[in-house]
Amino acid sequence: MPIDFSIPADADAYRRKVRRFVAEAVVPAEKAALAGGVDDALRLRLQDLARAAGVFAPQAPAAFGGGGTDFLTTALLLEEAGYSPLGPLAMNCAAPDEGNMHLLSLVGSPAQQQRHLRPLVAGRARSCFAMTEPPPGAGSDPSALATIARRRPDGWLIEGEKIFISGADGAAFAIVMARAEGGDAPGATMFLVDADNPGWRVTERIRTIDTMTVGGHCRVELRDLFVGDDAVLGEPGRGLAHAQARLVPARLTHCMRWLGLARRAHDLALRRAGERSLFGATLGTLGMAQQLIADNEIDIAASRALLWQTVWQVAQGGKSTEESSRAKVFISEATGRVVDRAVQLAGGWGITEDSVIGRIYAEIRAFRIYDGPSEAHRAAIARRALARAQRPAS
Amino acid sequence: MPIDFSIPADADAYRRKVRRFVAEAVVPAEKAALAGGVDDALRLRLQDLARAAGVFAPQAPAAFGGGGTDFLTTALLLEEAGYSPLGPLAMNCAAPDEGNMHLLSLVGSPAQQQRHLRPLVAGRARSCFAMTEPPPGAGSDPSALATIARRRPDGWLIEGEKIFISGADGAAFAIVMARAEGGDAPGATMFLVDADNPGWRVTERIRTIDTMTVGGHCRVELRDLFVGDDAVLGEPGRGLAHAQARLVPARLTHCMRWLGLARRAHDLALRRAGERSLFGATLGTLGMAQQLIADNEIDIAASRALLWQTVWQVAQGGKSTEESSRAKVFISEATGRVVDRAVQLAGGWGITEDSVIGRIYAEIRAFRIYDGPSEAHRAAIARRALARAQRPAS
Amino acid sequence: MPIDFSIPADADAYRRKVRRFVAEAVVPAEKAALAGGVDDALRLRLQDLARAAGVFAPQAPAAFGGGGTDFLTTALLLEEAGYSPLGPLAMNCAAPDEGNMHLLSLVGSPAQQQRHLRPLVAGRARSCFAMTEPPPGAGSDPSALATIARRRPDGWLIEGEKIFISGADGAAFAIVMARAEGGDAPGATMFLVDADNPGWRVTERIRTIDTMTVGGHCRVELRDLFVGDDAVLGEPGRGLAHAQARLVPARLTHCMRWLGLARRAHDLALRRAGERSLFGATLGTLGMAQQLIADNEIDIAASRALLWQTVWQVAQGGKSTEESSRAKVFISEATGRVVDRAVQLAGGWGITEDSVIGRIYAEIRAFRIYDGPSEAHRAAIARRALARAQRPAS
Amino acid sequence: MPIDFSIPADADAYRRKVRRFVAEAVVPAEKAALAGGVDDALRLRLQDLARAAGVFAPQAPAAFGGGGTDFLTTALLLEEAGYSPLGPLAMNCAAPDEGNMHLLSLVGSPAQQQRHLRPLVAGRARSCFAMTEPPPGAGSDPSALATIARRRPDGWLIEGEKIFISGADGAAFAIVMARAEGGDAPGATMFLVDADNPGWRVTERIRTIDTMTVGGHCRVELRDLFVGDDAVLGEPGRGLAHAQARLVPARLTHCMRWLGLARRAHDLALRRAGERSLFGATLGTLGMAQQLIADNEIDIAASRALLWQTVWQVAQGGKSTEESSRAKVFISEATGRVVDRAVQLAGGWGITEDSVIGRIYAEIRAFRIYDGPSEAHRAAIARRALARAQRPAS
Repeated sequence: MPIDFSIPADADAYRRKVRRFVAEAVVPAEKAALAGGVDDALRLRLQDLARAAGVFAPQAPAAFGGGGTDFLTTALLLEEAGYSPLGPLAMNCAAPDEGNMHLLSLVGSPAQQQRHLRPLVAGRARSCFAMTEPPPGAGSDPSALATIARRRPDGWLIEGEKIFISGADGAAFAIVMARAEGGDAPGATMFLVDADNPGWRVTERIRTIDTMTVGGHCRVELRDLFVGDDAVLGEPGRGLAHAQARLVPARLTHCMRWLGLARRAHDLALRRAGERSLFGATLGTLGMAQQLIADNEIDIAASRALLWQTVWQVAQGGKSTEESSRAKVFISEATGRVVDRAVQLAGGWGITEDSVIGRIYAEIRAFRIYDGPSEAHRAAIARRALARAQRPAS
Repeated sequence: MPIDFSIPADADAYRRKVRRFVAEAVVPAEKAALAGGVDDALRLRLQDLARAAGVFAPQAPAAFGGGGTDFLTTALLLEEAGYSPLGPLAMNCAAPDEGNMHLLSLVGSPAQQQRHLRPLVAGRARSCFAMTEPPPGAGSDPSALATIARRRPDGWLIEGEKIFISGADGAAFAIVMARAEGGDAPGATMFLVDADNPGWRVTERIRTIDTMTVGGHCRVELRDLFVGDDAVLGEPGRGLAHAQARLVPARLTHCMRWLGLARRAHDLALRRAGERSLFGATLGTLGMAQQLIADNEIDIAASRALLWQTVWQVAQGGKSTEESSRAKVFISEATGRVVDRAVQLAGGWGITEDSVIGRIYAEIRAFRIYDGPSEAHRAAIARRALARAQRPAS
Repeated sequence: MPIDFSIPADADAYRRKVRRFVAEAVVPAEKAALAGGVDDALRLRLQDLARAAGVFAPQAPAAFGGGGTDFLTTALLLEEAGYSPLGPLAMNCAAPDEGNMHLLSLVGSPAQQQRHLRPLVAGRARSCFAMTEPPPGAGSDPSALATIARRRPDGWLIEGEKIFISGADGAAFAIVMARAEGGDAPGATMFLVDADNPGWRVTERIRTIDTMTVGGHCRVELRDLFVGDDAVLGEPGRGLAHAQARLVPARLTHCMRWLGLARRAHDLALRRAGERSLFGATLGTLGMAQQLIADNEIDIAASRALLWQTVWQVAQGGKSTEESSRAKVFISEATGRVVDRAVQLAGGWGITEDSVIGRIYAEIRAFRIYDGPSEAHRAAIARRALARAQRPAS
Repeated sequence: MPIDFSIPADADAYRRKVRRFVAEAVVPAEKAALAGGVDDALRLRLQDLARAAGVFAPQAPAAFGGGGTDFLTTALLLEEAGYSPLGPLAMNCAAPDEGNMHLLSLVGSPAQQQRHLRPLVAGRARSCFAMTEPPPGAGSDPSALATIARRRPDGWLIEGEKIFISGADGAAFAIVMARAEGGDAPGATMFLVDADNPGWRVTERIRTIDTMTVGGHCRVELRDLFVGDDAVLGEPGRGLAHAQARLVPARLTHCMRWLGLARRAHDLALRRAGERSLFGATLGTLGMAQQLIADNEIDIAASRALLWQTVWQVAQGGKSTEESSRAKVFISEATGRVVDRAVQLAGGWGITEDSVIGRIYAEIRAFRIYDGPSEAHRAAIARRALARAQRPAS
């Protein structure tokens, strides 16, 4: 039979191991983190536990100390990791580091990989990806890039401002997107910038409704930021193409983690619905509660099915931009619906932070905006569909 | 890598052959059928074309003259067949015959298979599945079965009334569900009934908003309907279990065909959107049109992903009742949304029957009700989720 | 207290009279009309009954034989009329005649009113409004008007093609929108055209999913269509402004009638839900059925509240384009949802034409497209909101 | 014409005065409150400003120092107050005090009114309404009341636990619902309890996703709580009826305030959409942004129309339970959609707390749960609709 959805025994065993780790080691740490926030101390403590459990950095390149799992196994594991808002942090597969590891393994020079990728995989360093700018700069429309890197002898002088840079506060280094001017290959180019470079300055941790990202979402100023020639990551002038190579799989790892988180909210609400009495019946036997439950089950199943198919497609190579856009829009919206229904099902308890559901509700809202808002993806999907419709059918 | 979505070359070639057949032989027959209705004369004419094209009854059991494709290949082919409302008819893979072939191949005796299955696969006979009854009989709740089969020497005497029996008018035989009384194994039992049995009487073709089923949706009276012992299909008293064995895959073949039909409506609207000018722009470049287009692309992709995964699961054996319920609810609603958006995108033209979109719109509404309304499936899904939530996690 | 929602006794009495008329005289005529279609014979028969019941043309100008009710009383009455798909026809307050009466009373010359408005109010003639054109002509974008009226001595020679002209087949006259060229006031201009003018030719009754409009939705050819100077309706060159004066209230009378029709579908389903047993309970006591019912109640209440407020606003004078667009989008979509839920609640019976619900389902789909599709209204609403947001607050 | 939506000049002037006050005095205080939280010090400072502006406690009974506006004028003013999350606090028309003032004016004895109502209206005291209990106590199902008040000579001894008691921390007194046992009129009864009663103990401020209620949402223990006979509020045994008399209008004042808050989020996003450039165009000119904007405009207009109509109905006397349930469900969901769309329209800025939109997003989620979750209201609405459907039509 064409198409085989069997999960091999070893991948399934790994999945169960992660599930157990999250349940036993990560979930118990949530209460304190929800009250007090997340920071590097918590991260390091959790990462020690993950190492001990043998579930550390499963997706990271094996040559640099990671588990080197294929992309579909990664989908299984990151969903389990995402079951706690702290799971990906513990397992060193959280955004933005996870995407940066992938990018560095794809386009980093051997020296860059030794210097930046290795400590990142090991959890000795955090990183950030500095692309988004305040309006009218690069946001949904990356071509509006306003940060400039001017050619200097032996290097580049970068000026600009970045915003919503996740994890910037406390990151050891950043991947900065800037428009190169004056060199051989002008245009969007990526640069590796150490955080102790005096030209790199985190000026604000923006207060957002999501709070579970170590290093926050920051505003960063780049002033007189000089980097040497060896700071160019990948090919000069090909920054947007490289970013795309990072974004397509990063969108999907986002989907994996968020799917786990939505499942968590659903499970919490479901358990509540099985226990709580109302009007002389168990809540879960009431029709409208059943509708919320069933719709969650359906959205989770459809999300996972679409995710796996898209992950497979990306793993075959090819650009898969359209497919990953479709998956991102569907899954970000479906998981948002799941969590909203979980809140409703859990009632008053659902809007408390103590229930975790309330925190997940706030956390997941950002997913429809990060990595391109749904509207930008929809426009891209429609343009491709229209173009396809005008070609002769195959 | 676990999970393999590759479509082998032979399955893909078969799919393309069906696609070509539908485009070249079936679509041209639509206009007349939309104006004049569908009947057996049309069916026979189209089936000759399908035989000539080598795409006849691909899913039917090979031992009885069908193509014997595995269930995932069937998913590929039936989606293509469904691209025209007449495609499944032409290819002899339409409801209810397709499900009846499957049931007969599972539980029919050799004699029954010779007598009923063989001509059905060959297109020499049509059939129907007589289960639903007027309220308060069997509908969403099959346990309310009110048709009675009383034990007589050498056979059974059946009394009752059936409603919404698709294809009954002109069917050669029916599979009738009745509650057996007085025999060794009382309870719901299935009987094979020839249409020329004087106790079988089609009393009304119900006017419904869908019109593309040969033989309509009928009201049938069973009065003094005597059948011999050899009319029992499968085991006496196990009628509901047998029905379930029919319903689970039949739900999915419905999904396959409807997915094709929704894709057709989308393609028609998409082509329109690429041609039509509005406010000085092509319709397809307007943001709200793009949203309709993108949402259709997403719903189609998610439907197909969930369908394939469920089809694979069913093909592994096991009951898959919950999985098929989830797929049925999601896909019936998603394809409904797709067609509704196609109507909106196509504007005035979309509500004409000439555009086919208007006809598809009316046709597909029934899908959220047939084979169990969404509400009944949701209740079943929720009950199972709640039960699962109370078991210890694995 | 500011704002008074009291309905005076006389308006309420009129409303009850219409309700009784529809229940006793119109509803019994539905079965035959659903099977056989609607035509002028049926119209004339029903209109005799309405005259006898004292509920004929309540909204039409009193000076020409109508009831002359104010616009809010009209809202009460037309909702009741709309309770049957035949009610507005019977009471001579159906589209497009009702809107044409309004337009003729606003901008018609005394001679035009005697000749065209009087017989229209009396039900001796039907009319149509010929504005929409096949792409790339006037549709959602009226400025694309492609029909041309060329100045000739003593009159105009009109050439063009119109589409989706409701009621054209059998209409005594048409109001034709054309672009005047060569006269003193070029631009969109309305002309009164008798149906026996040899240049006016209904070439096709388009098969659409809605079937309850006498005279259908037609394609019309205008070839060498000569009309005299006295055929100009309103001011030359001001056709679009006049059309707007027709469209704003016509949108709302549509909303009134459709609201009645949605209420009908809901009532039918509700009665069913109160009677039918399922799983040992009355359908209406099941939670998911209650959700369908409650959402219908809510959508109907919100629609009526928004409708009345908008009707009041229009009655105060002023353009109210934005307000009427908001009401049209909300009510067309809300009533569509109501009918869809009614179908689902009624189950198999809901998709039969016999239940009337199935017919209403097909009928009401057009409402989101006629009179400007939702997307065109939304674009207009957003543009005004944005403009308002840039003005200083009051 | 029946029905008059005119807003008299004095009500309109009052509305503008409130609008100006909120813009000039309240909005500037938001930034600090968003960062540091809300407390009584902030409340007292803002209330001084409101008194100075002549907009203090407009809705409160005039006999006790309030403005005594009728209910429809109240609707105008509370929408304006709600435009800032701090507005109702500043104007002393926030929940739960506003509802408690209403209840005390309805059923309080003259002595209770002097002692509790007067300082409440004056802003010298805050109060809370202690009805909800942890499962399996009173929640969506008030009949499950588990707090017991036992008859003692000269008074009552109350035992129980309450949860989600808004404003409890720092309140001067509470209205406690308990089941009276041993008295003449057993059953749910309301008691006035001073916060310095040693039997009243706030044990926890529950961390919830909404943070703008002074005094939080608390868990309260009632242990050996003795109150005298004069603590009974209203009639003994009629507590649920009295609660209903509080809840029906309180639901609508909630709707008024939330409508203002949703409008605020929309206005903020709208201004952003008018300024921000994207893909070479202003964001607000892109179709998908226009759809978000238009849907917000429509939801706001429909909410306001339904609200006013319901407010009028309540003001006429009668119970209006069903009408207020319909309004509560529609408006809580519509305003939730409005804020969600505002977040999406505002993009990254929308999920910051600085934009206020992000805060409003978290704040408004509770509205679909407080005052009865949507599901409980829907069940009640459906039951009444079904009952009505079985009565003969009028």
